[in-house]
Amino acid sequence: MPSEEFIVTPWEVEGHVDYGKLITLFGTQPIDDHILGRFKKLTGSIPLMLRRKIFFSQRDLNWILDCYEAGQRFVLYTGRGPSGHTHLGHLMPWVFTKYLQDSFGADLYFQLTDDEKFLQKDPLSMHMVRGFSYDNALDVIALGFDPQKTRIFLDTEYVHTLYPIALEVSKRVTFSAARAVFGFDVSTNVGMISFTSMQSAPAFLPSIEAGRNVPVLIPCAIDQDPHFRVTRDVAPKMGYYKPALIHSRFFPSLLGQDKMSASLPETSIFTTDDPDEARRKIANAFTGGRATVREQRELGGTPDVCTIYQYAFYLFEEDDRRAFELREECLTGARACGTCKKELADKVVAFLEDHQRKREQAKDRLEDFMVRDC
Amino acid sequence: MPSEEFIVTPWEVEGHVDYGKLITLFGTQPIDDHILGRFKKLTGSIPLMLRRKIFFSQRDLNWILDCYEAGQRFVLYTGRGPSGHTHLGHLMPWVFTKYLQDSFGADLYFQLTDDEKFLQKDPLSMHMVRGFSYDNALDVIALGFDPQKTRIFLDTEYVHTLYPIALEVSKRVTFSAARAVFGFDVSTNVGMISFTSMQSAPAFLPSIEAGRNVPVLIPCAIDQDPHFRVTRDVAPKMGYYKPALIHSRFFPSLLGQDKMSASLPETSIFTTDDPDEARRKIANAFTGGRATVREQRELGGTPDVCTIYQYAFYLFEEDDRRAFELREECLTGARACGTCKKELADKVVAFLEDHQRKREQAKDRLEDFMVRDC
Repeated sequence: MPSEEFIVTPWEVEGHVDYGKLITLFGTQPIDDHILGRFKKLTGSIPLMLRRKIFFSQRDLNWILDCYEAGQRFVLYTGRGPSGHTHLGHLMPWVFTKYLQDSFGADLYFQLTDDEKFLQKDPLSMHMVRGFSYDNALDVIALGFDPQKTRIFLDTEYVHTLYPIALEVSKRVTFSAARAVFGFDVSTNVGMISFTSMQSAPAFLPSIEAGRNVPVLIPCAIDQDPHFRVTRDVAPKMGYYKPALIHSRFFPSLLGQDKMSASLPETSIFTTDDPDEARRKIANAFTGGRATVREQRELGGTPDVCTIYQYAFYLFEEDDRRAFELREECLTGARACGTCKKELADKVVAFLEDHQRKREQAKDRLEDFMVRDC
Repeated sequence: MPSEEFIVTPWEVEGHVDYGKLITLFGTQPIDDHILGRFKKLTGSIPLMLRRKIFFSQRDLNWILDCYEAGQRFVLYTGRGPSGHTHLGHLMPWVFTKYLQDSFGADLYFQLTDDEKFLQKDPLSMHMVRGFSYDNALDVIALGFDPQKTRIFLDTEYVHTLYPIALEVSKRVTFSAARAVFGFDVSTNVGMISFTSMQSAPAFLPSIEAGRNVPVLIPCAIDQDPHFRVTRDVAPKMGYYKPALIHSRFFPSLLGQDKMSASLPETSIFTTDDPDEARRKIANAFTGGRATVREQRELGGTPDVCTIYQYAFYLFEEDDRRAFELREECLTGARACGTCKKELADKVVAFLEDHQRKREQAKDRLEDFMVRDC
């Protein structure tokens, strides 16, 4: 979906993303106070990522909550394109997905689109994307999803199950429709052109398995919305509910762009980074600070462009009052970048050490989560 | 591949096909006397379908025979788009394939493209194309293929095996390349656009399974050549041999067009037709005869446009001398249409009765031939 200032597609995010404009461009709905109130009523609290509007946009989310209130369980569906190691930006929506699973007792289908990443990324082999898939699955498992309620699969290992559903989607999507949504041109390979049907398939699988229509909620970053617009277009033609969506912003890059990129290691902290590496990346991060400590004291910093502040805001400072104070202290010059970096680095390292321990344990638990055709 | 007088694509054959021109348009090679001589030398005789140039065109067939002479076994690959019951036009290349299996001891991979027919034909459901697939498989088995050397599969049941290979193909085929070969437009569904990669996959499977390059020969009607041009284009990029091809003409329609069509039952004799039905269709067939018996006696008929004569020539008159005599007797007026129809009907009915018996037996032998992912 190109605009003058930024580009957001499933394969490209560039420029400074205006999330309000994206809601208009994509035709989604904002997460409003009414929805926050419903979450509070249903789950007892409003999680950080909703309070702070990190998940900021939705489609049919009120309907999902209506279903739940009427006693109808919904199923969660999310995924990952396994083009590299997992970084904190990938974890963010999964952390929120875990909250949804815990709070609503929802089953989760987690798709690893190894086929897509193979098709999309020239240098990646099937062997490499499969390796990244299992690597990424460890991070999903390490977050503590319920093995009784979670299935993780690679497209190439679950294709016998997914392909007949993908065919039903493919038959209903013309080239011109796909081109309009994704911006394909004549040099796009034919696999990429039809891939979206594989990303639609898991949205219908719960209904097929249950033999009745099952509501599905897809938490994902907003760049995946184009795929699910296709899914929602074909759903009624196939006799299924349209899946609901809840969209997150992009996790900030340490160098200050709008989305972390696994292909630029310095912009991201990976779950496999060792503590020294993480500290070094944070020390080198782009901040909203002034050129000198003196200027910072006199003029204050700009937390809203600061990646260190955003890390705290998105993931590492649970306490709203404390998050607010951090911002104020920066704005007034009471706080220097070094302090923020040190505090964040300590938290990130503590998180990584804990996560990496659980990630190691996950290696023995893969088979509790992975499903395959055979 | 459009031309002024006729159209031949995998999904459409229209007009009066000029097979010589098709060789030029498609860039294939004719089956010449040198090749016939090699078949005679290697197998002891030249089968009807080569002698009569019903298989008339090829790509790299001499290379396949070179490999065989050098002691390297080739594998056969053919298939069927299961959009309806099997008619005699479908059987024709399979009869030739059976000869190749018997004469060269070749393994056969037989693909039923249920995915393609579902995607292509609006009214067909997945359930219907799967039903036709198993129905068609009975006809393949009834022809007497060696179960030790033959595997038959539906794409949707073997997709776990085929999909990773299809992805390797898809990645190397752009929309513009596919459009140039198949004539897609913007209203084509995205499944049809990428489908050709599934039809390429079995051409590489023997090499993947063997862990070394295996020569593959594809006997098929000439309308399938566009798919295998794609296969041959990508083969060297994937590190495999290009599959060789041997192309047949189209089996004549009883109403005198160029290809039998399963969607027009009166144009075709189906393997499931009962004897009365077959006799009726033959009685109503388009012939090269004159309006009256008297005119026929005086002026003679036109066997080259006669579907009855063509049935004999393609399948039902093995004896070349007798086939020549039939033609001469028609040309000179010594033979009336009624006689030809009666003789052909007797042969067709005898064939159908035998085939239907074997087809019944094949129901108990399906599992000796079918392979599935799981």
